[in-house]
Amino acid sequence: MLTSFIPVDKESHFPIQNLPFSAFETEDGEIHLCSAIGDYVIDLFVLDEAGLFDGKHLKDQFAFQDSTLNFFMGLGKPAWQEARQTLTNLLDKENPTLRDDDLLRSRVFIPMEDVEMVMPVEIGDYTDFYSSEQHAFNVGSMFRDPDNALMPNWKHLPVGYHGRASSIVLSGTDLHRPKGQTIPNDSDQPVFSDSKLLDFELEVGFFTGPGNELGDTISVDNAEDHIFGMVLVNDWSARDIQKWEYQPLGPFLAKNWATSISPWIVTLDALSPFRLDMPEQDPEVLPYLNQKNRSTFDINLEVYLDNEKLNEPHKLATSNYKHMYWSMAQQLAHQTVTGCNVRPGDIYASGTISGNTEDSYGSMLELTWKGTKPVQLNDGSERKFIQDGDNIIMTGYAENDDYRIGFGVVEGKILPAKQ
Amino acid sequence: MLTSFIPVDKESHFPIQNLPFSAFETEDGEIHLCSAIGDYVIDLFVLDEAGLFDGKHLKDQFAFQDSTLNFFMGLGKPAWQEARQTLTNLLDKENPTLRDDDLLRSRVFIPMEDVEMVMPVEIGDYTDFYSSEQHAFNVGSMFRDPDNALMPNWKHLPVGYHGRASSIVLSGTDLHRPKGQTIPNDSDQPVFSDSKLLDFELEVGFFTGPGNELGDTISVDNAEDHIFGMVLVNDWSARDIQKWEYQPLGPFLAKNWATSISPWIVTLDALSPFRLDMPEQDPEVLPYLNQKNRSTFDINLEVYLDNEKLNEPHKLATSNYKHMYWSMAQQLAHQTVTGCNVRPGDIYASGTISGNTEDSYGSMLELTWKGTKPVQLNDGSERKFIQDGDNIIMTGYAENDDYRIGFGVVEGKILPAKQ
Repeated sequence: MLTSFIPVDKESHFPIQNLPFSAFETEDGEIHLCSAIGDYVIDLFVLDEAGLFDGKHLKDQFAFQDSTLNFFMGLGKPAWQEARQTLTNLLDKENPTLRDDDLLRSRVFIPMEDVEMVMPVEIGDYTDFYSSEQHAFNVGSMFRDPDNALMPNWKHLPVGYHGRASSIVLSGTDLHRPKGQTIPNDSDQPVFSDSKLLDFELEVGFFTGPGNELGDTISVDNAEDHIFGMVLVNDWSARDIQKWEYQPLGPFLAKNWATSISPWIVTLDALSPFRLDMPEQDPEVLPYLNQKNRSTFDINLEVYLDNEKLNEPHKLATSNYKHMYWSMAQQLAHQTVTGCNVRPGDIYASGTISGNTEDSYGSMLELTWKGTKPVQLNDGSERKFIQDGDNIIMTGYAENDDYRIGFGVVEGKILPAKQ
Repeated sequence: MLTSFIPVDKESHFPIQNLPFSAFETEDGEIHLCSAIGDYVIDLFVLDEAGLFDGKHLKDQFAFQDSTLNFFMGLGKPAWQEARQTLTNLLDKENPTLRDDDLLRSRVFIPMEDVEMVMPVEIGDYTDFYSSEQHAFNVGSMFRDPDNALMPNWKHLPVGYHGRASSIVLSGTDLHRPKGQTIPNDSDQPVFSDSKLLDFELEVGFFTGPGNELGDTISVDNAEDHIFGMVLVNDWSARDIQKWEYQPLGPFLAKNWATSISPWIVTLDALSPFRLDMPEQDPEVLPYLNQKNRSTFDINLEVYLDNEKLNEPHKLATSNYKHMYWSMAQQLAHQTVTGCNVRPGDIYASGTISGNTEDSYGSMLELTWKGTKPVQLNDGSERKFIQDGDNIIMTGYAENDDYRIGFGVVEGKILPAKQ
């Protein structure tokens, strides 16, 4: 098996088989693009400046001397694969180039604990889908009718909506509880207050690469060539604000105040050993959504709640990305079928991912069934929704007998509302 | 009255009192920021390079040597007013600086007919509101119930949703008819086809300036300090796609394929002589939306349909921006009350503007009442919705006895769907 001269624990999220992309702030306050191996950030700026990305797609492109990944994303899959191959070669335990160059090694590998990660992408547009059947079923059951939980369109198209890009923040950003209009039960007069029903949504998102010109489409069978990689997404939601505002044009302020993402973008190539075929869809979809080899990835997902009073983080949910009805390729083909243009650095999130057991639901709304079944924590307290001081931590990884391909974490603490 | 040494027709949209901002492509293929007077573009790059923006806010900022207005927008109202005053002085018929410098004049003033305008802003996020009461009433009447046309939330908050920023295009961009899923009447099986119910929406949008940090808010009484200026917006809509997709998360593909804007951004200072007080709102709004001096602008709006078979453009609608229930300040205060951050270059559109007479409705949906009252054109044809080859032209201007403050036009022709 391929191994690196950099030691990597078996449970590490970042073996040589992963090589995700991100950005960090250097000691000098500059933003450098990076990858990761074991407990180290790999400074790609330094490698690029040293002329080590010398393949035909990346030579003289200075792709890793930018402060965001957008340019690299726009170069497309051949460049992504060349970068991956170059890094794999440079990190291989048999390759002396980097291994035996102490000066270069000291500049390239920086302990993760010493650096601050920064947003690696200038995000253009943000789309949030609604592609987990169990989640759509749960929400439909709670707010409408269990016998008629899915809308008639749900199995014909990947329902989605546009989100707010400006308020997408990196893991570790603490967030003030939002305030807004809500409607008390049995009243027709709204009130203004702190949101009382604050929730997370466990999602996985993907960033796009080259994209298409306005008026063109991306076919479902070519769509993966436009997917640069994936991140964990917490689509924070204020349920009480949402309930009052969302008719008829959809969620707006309930979700515009923050969406958190994990810093490491994991490529589809790294995840390829963990592909799973997706079952045939019934009813059959229209031809533009009919993907030849429909597949997803076996990615374990976990959600924890932590705060100062708990001995250890409380696990709220155990789920998996495989619980998706619509594939990423179908989502992207749908988004563009009208001719909508996709750009490098757009993000497309899955929607809340809920498995088919009660401990695999991807939101407090579902886990506590609208607050009717509170979660018991080990300090004796309980939760219907998120309280001030709660840190919500999501993690995700695929694994086999040899290694894990991990996403790290996306976390964010809820601070009291600003007064 | 203030007049310029550049002659300006009384019906021109661009007297010295307007001075809107935009960008154009120079003979050398560079992008320069510009203003306008009469039939001329004013090259702001040249004026900036000549050191003529020498006030305390703009000196040494090179604000007009960028290729977008975003940096200038972020400088805030004192810088905007200084730029306006500098331009007013330079264009004044009594001021020899520019008037008597033939060489500089020849570089600064370029006939509008000789230049191609380009997108002057790197647009971050796009929000579309739904703030015309007559429009919301019309749509609610058609699709729900005339006795209960407005949703319960409509008079308590400016309903809005996030739109797609990537597909905002400049006036003059022709657009292919989108394709997508629609549901035939009396069927539960969707079909894939060209959109058959293609529509425009007459809107006015505003661009934001400095904005706020995530977690902060913009108060309703300070909100106008964050509004850089206004443009005409055509929020193209595929009604048949919208009908099938929009439950429960709102419009998505129906509108993601294009939104057209006019190139000239007209400042609130230019429009200030045309302010109108807005009536008190009933029911009373919550304090965060309670604006001290609630005002709008008296801006005439017109929509025309043209195509090769018509002798002259057919006027479809005559409306006015004053027909708004919610002010721009209320929209922006609402958008940010949760702590959502606003950035220089975001755009916020009004939603379809419909007056209270049948000839003032802002969409084909309303003008033809869902196609039941087709519009008769002078070539003997009729329209229920937009046909291939139709060019939709919107224009807008405020006027008094002395001059017009105009927006120019936003136009776009619908081409056949790509096969």
